[in-house]
Amino acid sequence: MKNRIYLDYAATTPVLPEVLAEMLPYFTEEFGNPSGVYGTARDARRAVEQARRQVAEAIGAEPAEIYFTSGGSESDNMAIQGIARAASGRGKHIITSRIEHHAVLNPCRQLEKEGWQVTYLPVDRSGRISPEDVEKAITPDTVLISIMAANNEIGTLEPIREIGRIAGNHGIPFHTDAVQAVGCTDLNVHRDKIDLLSLSAHKIYGPKGVGALYIRRGTRIEGLIRGGAQERGLRAGTENTAGIVGLGAAIRIARSDMAARTETIRRLRDRMIRETLDTIPDSCLNGPAEDRLCNNCHFSFAGVESETLLLRMDLAGIAASGGSACTSGSTEPSHVMEAIRPGGEQTGGSIRLTLGRETTEEDVDETVRTMREIVADLRNLRGVLVR
Amino acid sequence: MKNRIYLDYAATTPVLPEVLAEMLPYFTEEFGNPSGVYGTARDARRAVEQARRQVAEAIGAEPAEIYFTSGGSESDNMAIQGIARAASGRGKHIITSRIEHHAVLNPCRQLEKEGWQVTYLPVDRSGRISPEDVEKAITPDTVLISIMAANNEIGTLEPIREIGRIAGNHGIPFHTDAVQAVGCTDLNVHRDKIDLLSLSAHKIYGPKGVGALYIRRGTRIEGLIRGGAQERGLRAGTENTAGIVGLGAAIRIARSDMAARTETIRRLRDRMIRETLDTIPDSCLNGPAEDRLCNNCHFSFAGVESETLLLRMDLAGIAASGGSACTSGSTEPSHVMEAIRPGGEQTGGSIRLTLGRETTEEDVDETVRTMREIVADLRNLRGVLVR
Repeated sequence: MKNRIYLDYAATTPVLPEVLAEMLPYFTEEFGNPSGVYGTARDARRAVEQARRQVAEAIGAEPAEIYFTSGGSESDNMAIQGIARAASGRGKHIITSRIEHHAVLNPCRQLEKEGWQVTYLPVDRSGRISPEDVEKAITPDTVLISIMAANNEIGTLEPIREIGRIAGNHGIPFHTDAVQAVGCTDLNVHRDKIDLLSLSAHKIYGPKGVGALYIRRGTRIEGLIRGGAQERGLRAGTENTAGIVGLGAAIRIARSDMAARTETIRRLRDRMIRETLDTIPDSCLNGPAEDRLCNNCHFSFAGVESETLLLRMDLAGIAASGGSACTSGSTEPSHVMEAIRPGGEQTGGSIRLTLGRETTEEDVDETVRTMREIVADLRNLRGVLVR
Repeated sequence: MKNRIYLDYAATTPVLPEVLAEMLPYFTEEFGNPSGVYGTARDARRAVEQARRQVAEAIGAEPAEIYFTSGGSESDNMAIQGIARAASGRGKHIITSRIEHHAVLNPCRQLEKEGWQVTYLPVDRSGRISPEDVEKAITPDTVLISIMAANNEIGTLEPIREIGRIAGNHGIPFHTDAVQAVGCTDLNVHRDKIDLLSLSAHKIYGPKGVGALYIRRGTRIEGLIRGGAQERGLRAGTENTAGIVGLGAAIRIARSDMAARTETIRRLRDRMIRETLDTIPDSCLNGPAEDRLCNNCHFSFAGVESETLLLRMDLAGIAASGGSACTSGSTEPSHVMEAIRPGGEQTGGSIRLTLGRETTEEDVDETVRTMREIVADLRNLRGVLVR
């Protein structure tokens, strides 16, 4: 059941062989509990602290500002719930957007049930959040602004520097879900005035089940998982040493070749967009043409259903996604597509194709050719059925 | 910085080579996101569901009652916070014990800050919780009883079958932290009337960063990490496929050789206890002689400080622990030792030695010999300093 062409790198990536090689000793030889007081435990502790430095360096933070978690969803939950619980009494208002990942939206909805006010900012047709809207939404009760660095479905890069500056001017903590942006765009928490940043290893060729939350020193926050004193008392649980080492290695590699890698992928992305729009009638690109994740293509085709298209692509050996992997079991329309097409405007079935390290020009050409045939076929079939 | 003899298996275990071998394909070849709709994703999904069956079988549950988490601490937090949030309105009282792991105690303390009542039951000198005390503590407001299956420091096996029966008779959900008990004792959630059970992979020769929470079908509970619809909507986040496969393999192996393995380890444990008490003056065993984890030895030595003893053991190449690894950075006395020695009664420094698959008779003999020399040496030194 292998797919010959994998184009769902935004859903997850394979672990790079060199990342896995760095992880391996920590499963067997260097297996000590980093909290132990003996030799093998100290070796594990050193590996965790080295990974902490690697993550910190990649985003311009201090190592003491990095907290390891089980992944992007935990990081988002920890940021939102943690800031909210620590802020209680000073205000009960959060500003976010309609196109955030559910790991941001659902903790916000939960807080609403507990009496919080949440402003879900709209976006324009390219999925862009307006910094002016952020500023206008601020009230004396606002204790957190959470805006993603890049949208996981349609690839929009959000104006987080402007939003960071606004948040900073108002003294409000600014959280950004950078799960898709890390490794693709240049992020610096000091320059960009980010107070909390979520990231995940498995989106950048590291292992699943590990991520981190950057928390600016001095930020008032409570932990989500309570227990032992790990992660300076803010995140309990024996450290996932091998996973953390994998995250450190993955982010180090992502940073070291970012310029060249993203340029190559961007060129392939643009080829895919151009060839698709040029050769498949009634097709459109969702998300912006510029200010877009270097690896993201997101198309809609009139007269085609997303699920059928994906099934046929899979049968043709091409792995793609309808929206984000986290909601792909669902048949409901994506909340992101609803946000950029207000009023339920019909654009047809959509497909997300996200490129990665292994993607070649041949993959792009074959994918567009296959997609063109399938779309034509599905439209013919529909025509036959309608007649 | 290797330790020649590792005796901290309760803190963590190495991943078995056969477990690692089963995990490896899911880092690289079979790396698909289990939520995807294409071939490689379906392979990952199948692997996750096989692991779910393996975990379920090991504790007599249904696969649909197993929820994968990032480890024991998350499972404990999810159980306690989740039951509490779902029960709000029906009552605000929880029964637990003074010797639970901090991953149970700290969520309870948090709930107390939010207006909940928590009863922390005392234990006898062997660390045993009385089922009668549990029953007496029940009020009309009680919505959860959380009692560990085995204590992680002093090895006491708690009477969870009796407690499960009492909880069942009163219609109150019963959670047990079985992180130390799984793989060492026979657990069956139906026979033992357990409604929620926490377990962790890295205590049973699986990887760190993965665990599970069993939740009996029909239990009213809310999730802790919100976002995507993974784990039937109760635990968001891309599944840690390799880790989950590792947990499944580890628990399958633990179950398959449990009788023989625990018998071998129990014999070595009894040899360690006998030789220590026989040959080291002013030594005592903490925890019960019977009804004790098969791999746990916990001693106190009069006139010796725990930290110095552990440091000297490490220098001699033996890895051991003072209490639990989660608190070993702390210099405060263990809450478990305080609970079994009410009134701050002095017994000297303590050491926990926990045995595992690799432990040999020679290891046991060398450890006792080394410990005897160090204890004598430290007492001499103290005598010299006092004089």
